[in-house]
Amino acid sequence: MFINAAIEALTTMLGDRLSLSKSDLSAHGQSEAHFDPSFPDAVAYPCNTDEVSKIVKTCAQHHCPVVGYGAGTSLEGHTLATRGGITIDFRNMSQVLAINRADMTVCVQPGITRETLNEDLRASGLFFPVDPGANASLGGMAATRASGTTAVRYGTMRDNVMALEIVLADGRIIRTGSGARKSSAGYDLTALMVGSEGTLGLITELTLKLQGQPEAIAAATCAFVTIDAAVEAVTTTIAMGIPMARIEFLDAASVAAVNAYSKANFPVTPHLMVEFHGSDASVAEQAERFGNIAQDFGGSAFSWATKPEERTRLWQMRHHVYWAILSSKKGATAIVTDVCVPISKLAQAIAETQADIDLAPISAPILGHVGDGNFHAILLVTPENSHEKRAALDLSERIANRAIAFGGTVTGEHGIGLGKMPYMAAEHGMGWDVMGQIKKTLDPLNIMNPGKVVRQN
Amino acid sequence: MFINAAIEALTTMLGDRLSLSKSDLSAHGQSEAHFDPSFPDAVAYPCNTDEVSKIVKTCAQHHCPVVGYGAGTSLEGHTLATRGGITIDFRNMSQVLAINRADMTVCVQPGITRETLNEDLRASGLFFPVDPGANASLGGMAATRASGTTAVRYGTMRDNVMALEIVLADGRIIRTGSGARKSSAGYDLTALMVGSEGTLGLITELTLKLQGQPEAIAAATCAFVTIDAAVEAVTTTIAMGIPMARIEFLDAASVAAVNAYSKANFPVTPHLMVEFHGSDASVAEQAERFGNIAQDFGGSAFSWATKPEERTRLWQMRHHVYWAILSSKKGATAIVTDVCVPISKLAQAIAETQADIDLAPISAPILGHVGDGNFHAILLVTPENSHEKRAALDLSERIANRAIAFGGTVTGEHGIGLGKMPYMAAEHGMGWDVMGQIKKTLDPLNIMNPGKVVRQN
Repeated sequence: MFINAAIEALTTMLGDRLSLSKSDLSAHGQSEAHFDPSFPDAVAYPCNTDEVSKIVKTCAQHHCPVVGYGAGTSLEGHTLATRGGITIDFRNMSQVLAINRADMTVCVQPGITRETLNEDLRASGLFFPVDPGANASLGGMAATRASGTTAVRYGTMRDNVMALEIVLADGRIIRTGSGARKSSAGYDLTALMVGSEGTLGLITELTLKLQGQPEAIAAATCAFVTIDAAVEAVTTTIAMGIPMARIEFLDAASVAAVNAYSKANFPVTPHLMVEFHGSDASVAEQAERFGNIAQDFGGSAFSWATKPEERTRLWQMRHHVYWAILSSKKGATAIVTDVCVPISKLAQAIAETQADIDLAPISAPILGHVGDGNFHAILLVTPENSHEKRAALDLSERIANRAIAFGGTVTGEHGIGLGKMPYMAAEHGMGWDVMGQIKKTLDPLNIMNPGKVVRQN
Repeated sequence: MFINAAIEALTTMLGDRLSLSKSDLSAHGQSEAHFDPSFPDAVAYPCNTDEVSKIVKTCAQHHCPVVGYGAGTSLEGHTLATRGGITIDFRNMSQVLAINRADMTVCVQPGITRETLNEDLRASGLFFPVDPGANASLGGMAATRASGTTAVRYGTMRDNVMALEIVLADGRIIRTGSGARKSSAGYDLTALMVGSEGTLGLITELTLKLQGQPEAIAAATCAFVTIDAAVEAVTTTIAMGIPMARIEFLDAASVAAVNAYSKANFPVTPHLMVEFHGSDASVAEQAERFGNIAQDFGGSAFSWATKPEERTRLWQMRHHVYWAILSSKKGATAIVTDVCVPISKLAQAIAETQADIDLAPISAPILGHVGDGNFHAILLVTPENSHEKRAALDLSERIANRAIAFGGTVTGEHGIGLGKMPYMAAEHGMGWDVMGQIKKTLDPLNIMNPGKVVRQN
């Protein structure tokens, strides 16, 4: 057995930092969404880049699969070891290596989570803006090209990763990018690695762009009578160029779930949750301009979250909405859609999705980062109910195909993993073959997170 | 002869849109900088993507080099056909295909220049922000990952290209990206192609992000006593998060050249040229905050360019500065450096460069997009004077190596072309090998702009 030979060699190398315990294999073989478990044969806990390189070299020698693992918050089964092999858990590589205030950058190891990073940054007056909600690891966020509530203002991981250290499939260690804020020096390997989901290499170090803490922050919620009105308010706001820091949509069902889960008291109608960043004067100006737009579309008066603790509570409620929605149906699991469409198609895409859901035998609250054109339907199913699961998968497929037909993408931020593989050919056409060529040249043995992103032979 | 066989086939295909005329070959074999001419064997003028695909297929069949050509404004010899072959001139593919106001995007063919694009966009109230100064083609700007005066606010071509149509080395036509503003759907082929300098494929269509015309624009110049003071004013401004639309540095020698060439009357000292975009209130606030910083560093009162025609004149003078500096030495050609360093190293990098220039037997005005950490020294040499040329090349090498030592890049925006090839190994280490692997898998015959970007066997 190739995998057993790799495990033998790695045990000698890592001692008790290679775990074969059932509980470890089980914990790393689960996912947060509806996928069946797939267990690795062993879990490695390297302490530094050199060890990662040696582990990968050993795995390459034995043709043994290697799956990277951060915080395990993927909703698309990225970390499931569908072909077994070694899962590399980066929990022992989760340090801030250097904060560079003058350049507004930070160098981190991949295992650090975004909440810990921002705690570590607090004294510097800087923060890392990308906010997927889940307390994901930065390595995982880069690997899936994550984004979230603040992408409308600060961009996605694509925009906020300056440089990477990567262990390639043959164990070579490369550095991509530099400390310069822009460069024309050859192929953009940083951008190629961001979003490659561990299939081209493993991220062992990241240099990230930071933002200065805004002088003023204001957050508010605003209730609307219809989904359409809320969405039109958003597209108008974006078209006016108002630099919203966050502009999040929740439909009535999402709001009801938040009320129940977070003991809140929002009117059960579609809502926007917004945040403004800037100087005092510019926040006031943005709030006034957005307020006028919201009013034009029948929005309620703002309910302000002015104090920091109120803001924290508001965004915690938002970040917990996935769990809130899951809790709204006992024993449910979720199939999560993640389409992103051109802003001009957003209202139509959401309306058609809602109509589609209304006809389905399952409930599926809708919410999303609508300023980017990105929204999620959380399709709730009882795992044992094959009728529900079939209906949900069909619905998910229609939502994905509709996004492609609208010129959008099947995944705005969650990545391909296992769940979006069926749509790669339709979304990318022959471009998907090119991805396969790149994979093949950088990982000829197909050991890096095999079965993900590219077409399988 | 392989190339002759390709020419024969292409003549049948294109008729008089394949030119063998001496003047055409000569025009396409020159560059705007110090490189010796290198002529193609023929110049093709395709009218659509399908023709480009057929041309490339024919060239692949005959192992004939293919070089893309836009406006010919590269300063690094990108379009020089160092191995002969076919130059594909995109002048017949320079249309705006669609302006999408709601999505704030435009779809264009690669041959359109940025000035023409912005003229065509004027009625829409939108503009394309990337401004390299030269009236470059959009295909060329994407191919070199260009940026320029506005990158500090609006980013580079990396940030402003949403989607591409590409003709690959075997003639396959792929589409990268989508109409969505973000995506996690697999490898970022758009980012891989942007900056690949025609070595992986030819760009035949681009979807670009647009910006709304700001409500208010104000531009100004500000004189400083020393280079250091001007640069420190810039780094402080960036650290404060003031969203400058432009913040350009010119040293005294550059200012003198501008005065002579553009009949201007600036005091001959280091200058910053700045522009603010936003609402009336935010422009006023930005100007006040920047004004305070400038004053702290001994800057003069602003000289405002308030009317649109005054602003146009100001930025025309800035855009013509390369020609102004060239004109300052009779019969001179230029070796242009293009380093970009971390902002924290900018003052030191410029100071050391200035000291280095002061010791050299040539003059070399310094200017740059200092808000990004990017600056140019324009090394003036008499082509026939080998002593000057040697001194300039040595100086250029020291400037490039200093940038790498500072954690920066040898090219912030001009690209590799021929001029920066010697630094790729030092800047990228084994990452350069990875670029070579990608090149080899996508262009196994090495016909696409051979001799550029990747290591040559």
